[in-house]
Amino acid sequence: MKVSFEELRQALKNILLQFSFSELKADLCAGVFASNSRDGVYSHGLNRFPVFIEYLKKGFINPSAEPELVKKNGLLETWDGHEGPGMYNATICMERAITLAKTNGFGCVNIRNSNHWMRGGTYGWQAADEGCIGICFTNAIAGMPPWGGSKARLGNNPIIIAVPRKEGHIVLDMAISQFSYGKMQEYEIAKQPLPFAGGYDDSGALSQDPALIRQLKTALPIGFWKGSGLALMLDILLTALGGGKSTAVISNSGNEVGLSQCFICFYQKDFHPSLVEEILAYTKSEFPDENGKISYPGERTLSTRNKNEREGIPVNPEIWEKVLNMVKR
Amino acid sequence: MKVSFEELRQALKNILLQFSFSELKADLCAGVFASNSRDGVYSHGLNRFPVFIEYLKKGFINPSAEPELVKKNGLLETWDGHEGPGMYNATICMERAITLAKTNGFGCVNIRNSNHWMRGGTYGWQAADEGCIGICFTNAIAGMPPWGGSKARLGNNPIIIAVPRKEGHIVLDMAISQFSYGKMQEYEIAKQPLPFAGGYDDSGALSQDPALIRQLKTALPIGFWKGSGLALMLDILLTALGGGKSTAVISNSGNEVGLSQCFICFYQKDFHPSLVEEILAYTKSEFPDENGKISYPGERTLSTRNKNEREGIPVNPEIWEKVLNMVKR
Repeated sequence: MKVSFEELRQALKNILLQFSFSELKADLCAGVFASNSRDGVYSHGLNRFPVFIEYLKKGFINPSAEPELVKKNGLLETWDGHEGPGMYNATICMERAITLAKTNGFGCVNIRNSNHWMRGGTYGWQAADEGCIGICFTNAIAGMPPWGGSKARLGNNPIIIAVPRKEGHIVLDMAISQFSYGKMQEYEIAKQPLPFAGGYDDSGALSQDPALIRQLKTALPIGFWKGSGLALMLDILLTALGGGKSTAVISNSGNEVGLSQCFICFYQKDFHPSLVEEILAYTKSEFPDENGKISYPGERTLSTRNKNEREGIPVNPEIWEKVLNMVKR
Repeated sequence: MKVSFEELRQALKNILLQFSFSELKADLCAGVFASNSRDGVYSHGLNRFPVFIEYLKKGFINPSAEPELVKKNGLLETWDGHEGPGMYNATICMERAITLAKTNGFGCVNIRNSNHWMRGGTYGWQAADEGCIGICFTNAIAGMPPWGGSKARLGNNPIIIAVPRKEGHIVLDMAISQFSYGKMQEYEIAKQPLPFAGGYDDSGALSQDPALIRQLKTALPIGFWKGSGLALMLDILLTALGGGKSTAVISNSGNEVGLSQCFICFYQKDFHPSLVEEILAYTKSEFPDENGKISYPGERTLSTRNKNEREGIPVNPEIWEKVLNMVKR
């Protein structure tokens, strides 16, 4: 089943308006969910919307909160998200980092007490659309054991690196686990095993069972000790810079609420596009005639976006039905 | 066989002085090699020194070059390393990023036409010793196939993230391959297989043979497609920001010369140390009584440093002998 972008955005917006979202905020947040589905990140698009609504109902997300600048240290700013919608706060913070970068070469905005931003790539594309290099990362509730351990103590903290490019931005959007929980949910819904080991079973052996790994919260960090160290460092960076809630505090609270995020932007007139093209051509040079065999980060996102804009966005009929029924008659 | 830090540094310095290094530059570069061995990174300490001397003899490294500021865009600076010694250039660039950060919250210095910086962690510790958060990364000659390919097209570009801490800095220093080439060389010298798959054999199957992987240049990126994307992004960031040689250009030249590097520093009065301690305690909380079972990045480095300072630095007798014989009588 397929729906158009506008149909999806409008349906989600109508529901958010019922939850005391302002027109502007409902439009922006619904647009983020709809764009995520349009770009093929279904796990953080429509499929995630019912969880977002649950969080609103539980009072975890304050629809009327506005992010606030609380500390300015040169070009390093700290904001407080006051537990508003994560997508709204993140968009404003990246916008602020873009503004700082356009006048100073770069800028950095840290936010505390925000909420899940859904797909981090959204804010990478946002920066790149403004001609900036964007880097952002967030923490999360614990979902991975650190190297040497078997219990979830690390957030599966994603990092996004986006570089603007006329022919299509280059955007890496990766969680630190081998498979994000969203991706594992897709495999679980499709009743398929993971293509590689993605976590541990209860004996500590590597496993390809998405349901078991999600239940035990034993997602495998990329590169074993390396991803474990990287996930930890991202949380430490966020906490050291912004003074917000760490994965430890979030996990002990039991709910993935009040997250910390960081948005970095670079801007200069010349990002040396011909040299960047040379890198992409070299990377793909083993199979110069086989388009798609080796791809750059963001390449498949763009092609999915184009396809879904032409043919409509695939939706899970059950979830779509459920969401449509949320609208008060 | 063990030697003291001073003995090691002085021996290396004496050799560098024979190669037209100034007193200052010889002291700094010898100190970096000696510190790397002292900190347990033998692959980029004494063991690497003979390769550095070969590069000097071939004219790949210009001992009298000085790094030069070539473009200033607010707090985003581009420097040219003029093919001087990588450790010297990197130390000066991180120093500059520290200075920018101390007056503006943060700073970013990109350098092009530099050379191998040996252990990237050196510059992370440098920033943290000055109370700054330091992030740096470099590109390298191709040593990893991209996801979907079998031929080396990606540099094993390391990234370093350092956060200052009174009880011992937290320093992640990781190359993007599952095992760095230096680490694989250590296993090869010790005639041991890698503890996990670290690359591909010539049939494309995963392999634990360090010699074969080093020969084929088929090191495995952490997380398969994820590390592949991350290594590519680091090279793209470096090239887009600094306009220097990419992995493509370096690899086509056949020699790992003229590398691009980026140094980012953050400084604020309060990096929330008690919140950071909370993160470390939580991460280790599965085994609160078993010290070392779960460790933070940099913890083992510090303990090796302390041990080697007390007991002397282990050296490979053959390499040590070879290096001592480099001194003209």
